[in-house]
Amino acid sequence: MEARGYAAHNAGAILAPFSFSRRDLRDHDVALDVLFCGVCHSDIHQVNEDWGPSIFPMVPGHEIVGVVTELGPSVKRFKVGDRIGVGTFVDSCRNCEYCLSGEEQYCVTGDTPTYNGLERDGTTIAFGGYSNRFVVDEAYAVRVPDSLDPAGVAPLLCAGITLYSPLRHWNASKETTVGIVGLGGLGHLGVKFAAALGAETTVFSHSANKRADARRLGAHHFVDTSDEQELTKLSGQYDLIINAVSADINLAPYLELLKVNGTLVLVGLPRHPYALGAGSLVNKRRSVAGSMAGGMKELQEMMDFCAEHEITSDVEVVRADYIQKAFERTVASDVKYRFVLDASSF
Amino acid sequence: MEARGYAAHNAGAILAPFSFSRRDLRDHDVALDVLFCGVCHSDIHQVNEDWGPSIFPMVPGHEIVGVVTELGPSVKRFKVGDRIGVGTFVDSCRNCEYCLSGEEQYCVTGDTPTYNGLERDGTTIAFGGYSNRFVVDEAYAVRVPDSLDPAGVAPLLCAGITLYSPLRHWNASKETTVGIVGLGGLGHLGVKFAAALGAETTVFSHSANKRADARRLGAHHFVDTSDEQELTKLSGQYDLIINAVSADINLAPYLELLKVNGTLVLVGLPRHPYALGAGSLVNKRRSVAGSMAGGMKELQEMMDFCAEHEITSDVEVVRADYIQKAFERTVASDVKYRFVLDASSF
Repeated sequence: MEARGYAAHNAGAILAPFSFSRRDLRDHDVALDVLFCGVCHSDIHQVNEDWGPSIFPMVPGHEIVGVVTELGPSVKRFKVGDRIGVGTFVDSCRNCEYCLSGEEQYCVTGDTPTYNGLERDGTTIAFGGYSNRFVVDEAYAVRVPDSLDPAGVAPLLCAGITLYSPLRHWNASKETTVGIVGLGGLGHLGVKFAAALGAETTVFSHSANKRADARRLGAHHFVDTSDEQELTKLSGQYDLIINAVSADINLAPYLELLKVNGTLVLVGLPRHPYALGAGSLVNKRRSVAGSMAGGMKELQEMMDFCAEHEITSDVEVVRADYIQKAFERTVASDVKYRFVLDASSF
Repeated sequence: MEARGYAAHNAGAILAPFSFSRRDLRDHDVALDVLFCGVCHSDIHQVNEDWGPSIFPMVPGHEIVGVVTELGPSVKRFKVGDRIGVGTFVDSCRNCEYCLSGEEQYCVTGDTPTYNGLERDGTTIAFGGYSNRFVVDEAYAVRVPDSLDPAGVAPLLCAGITLYSPLRHWNASKETTVGIVGLGGLGHLGVKFAAALGAETTVFSHSANKRADARRLGAHHFVDTSDEQELTKLSGQYDLIINAVSADINLAPYLELLKVNGTLVLVGLPRHPYALGAGSLVNKRRSVAGSMAGGMKELQEMMDFCAEHEITSDVEVVRADYIQKAFERTVASDVKYRFVLDASSF
């Protein structure tokens, strides 16, 4: 099946229009017309090989919302016209304990990334969602509730699940106090989820001008982290803090904010290792943990949760020829809060 | 009540004989003749002010086993002649959620350390167990099973509970694989506990000559960490690893040994912060946590567990005039596995 999209042809390249073929439908495949695809900061890192060697040509994009147009002969879960979503992976071994429990992101053989990876045949390059058409196994797509704006849904498939999963795993609820560090693409969804889960939610941001926005998104408190004394006052008050900043920051003041048994969760991959003093972990049995995206089961649970609580991402929808500018503005944190590509412009 | 012991009179001082008074018995106090007191590495750190300013004169010692000699009028739990133990703290607020749940080590007001602290009146220096007599509130002592060698019990009160508590908190059991990093005073008790809890237990040590000892203590596997390839082979195989080394080590290879959801627990306080790469946490939802000693409830549980499984510390019993040499040999890891002072020599 012929597709059009945007691709980088080598590390750091400007993305350019690209025509390519998607595979013919297998038994369990569905084809979709892409409606929207979110621009994730990790797209930029991978185009630039910030995390190691990438595979080119690269069609980025792993926040995909589309409409089913065609079905493989054995497809059971979807029908033509359904609105579905695809996130950060499109296959996995399907046999290990994590795949069997719906946590495919931790597949022991590694999952198959939506782009910048090879399909499980070991040779075919996986092309992502910066394109007009997509093909995916039905087991790696989720149903997108019709009540939600599809452009605002796209970023849920990566940014959203990256925050939703740890909030659920570490039991954010009416009984807990939650902090979200950084109010960007990830953080603003973390605030919406934490508040909807009933947690008393605080935004920690060095941008004092985001105070009003934090409240609008559902946060109960806002702390300007450029004032260190503000942090000191809150020592020992949080059950769960999620660091949604992928720049290098000092974790120490955030660890001190945790209660006994509290957890600081990292979801980004900054360039340098953190400095971790043992003292604040030992003194109150605190933890620093990591979390990566979420599995198919949780992705669907999140979609249903979003429908119930009317949650989507705040987005700025742009056309394909704006990609480079969108990359620049994403790096500069100059977007509220996520760029989404209108796939009709590919 | 008059007592004799050994004290340091200023930072880094050689410990010398010291006569002092213990308080008169309060309603709930018991007096004891000390039988044995363990020498903990933290005694040396505090004498040397490695962790900040200390209070002098300092009588160290928080691994105390003795026999009750006298009772305050309201004492209910013990009678004269009972063998009891005192650990790292002798009081706490008794009102916060942690005190009420028997986790006094996390008391929100801070517990009262057995030495190098002030009693809750804010003025009386607390003197530790390097002495012939001791006075303690009955709520801060545990019953020591008669079946256990009292010299071998002493190190359980700090070294033992420091390993027992995280093994229990993170559910070491027949279903789990546990690694203990470092085979010293703490580590060797960790091995005994982990094996007794049924966990498949591995010792990680850079001292290849400890292999036989690791097996004798109950470990199922021994890994010589001076051979990096040995570590690489075990990637992703452990549920729980406890780092019982308080020197600066690189955590990265140990994080890689953890399964999805695995936890690396720190119990020591090395001089420098660890370098912590986010990647190995994020990729498998791993955690780095800290843990400190244990509360009174767990201390008693550990004592009963030790009686059931016939666990005590491997000790070298020495007289008071050997303290300085014991300090030197503890720093040099030249003891199997803990020095214990014979309190009849004070």
